[in-house]
Amino acid sequence: MVRRISGQEDTAGHLKRLGDAVRAARNARGLSQEELADAAGIDRSHLGKIERGERNVTLLNVIRIATALNGSAAGLLSEAGL
Amino acid sequence: MVRRISGQEDTAGHLKRLGDAVRAARNARGLSQEELADAAGIDRSHLGKIERGERNVTLLNVIRIATALNGSAAGLLSEAGL
Repeated sequence: MVRRISGQEDTAGHLKRLGDAVRAARNARGLSQEELADAAGIDRSHLGKIERGERNVTLLNVIRIATALNGSAAGLLSEAGL
Repeated sequence: MVRRISGQEDTAGHLKRLGDAVRAARNARGLSQEELADAAGIDRSHLGKIERGERNVTLLNVIRIATALNGSAAGLLSEAGL
């Protein structure tokens, strides 16, 4: 099954890798999805989709999530191997 | 003047910093906007807007641009101080 991501295909699994890194960092900090979403100022269901690699997340939201995790966007992407 | 970026305000200038880093890396490699856009597989006018910090670029496009610059997305964001 080919999954369409916001009109672009994520054939290399990049969004999944980012999502996995977000979830790992969130769990390492003992935060629920709701707590992280609130801290980042984004919708909880949107965060869930980002963690599952179902959204082509924007840079500003990557920065918001990384900041809420007390890190940097570059660090988060590095953890994701991106 | 408050500039709206894809429905979100970039009050901290993050998109501008990314754009400046893209332009610097592009110039360092002697590439025109058109050459980089072609290599990244994105529209030239869209790349121009990204370089000027006028678009909330998506992660997949950051990865495409970084790859076309022979780097990583994490490295590009690190150069941008993000």
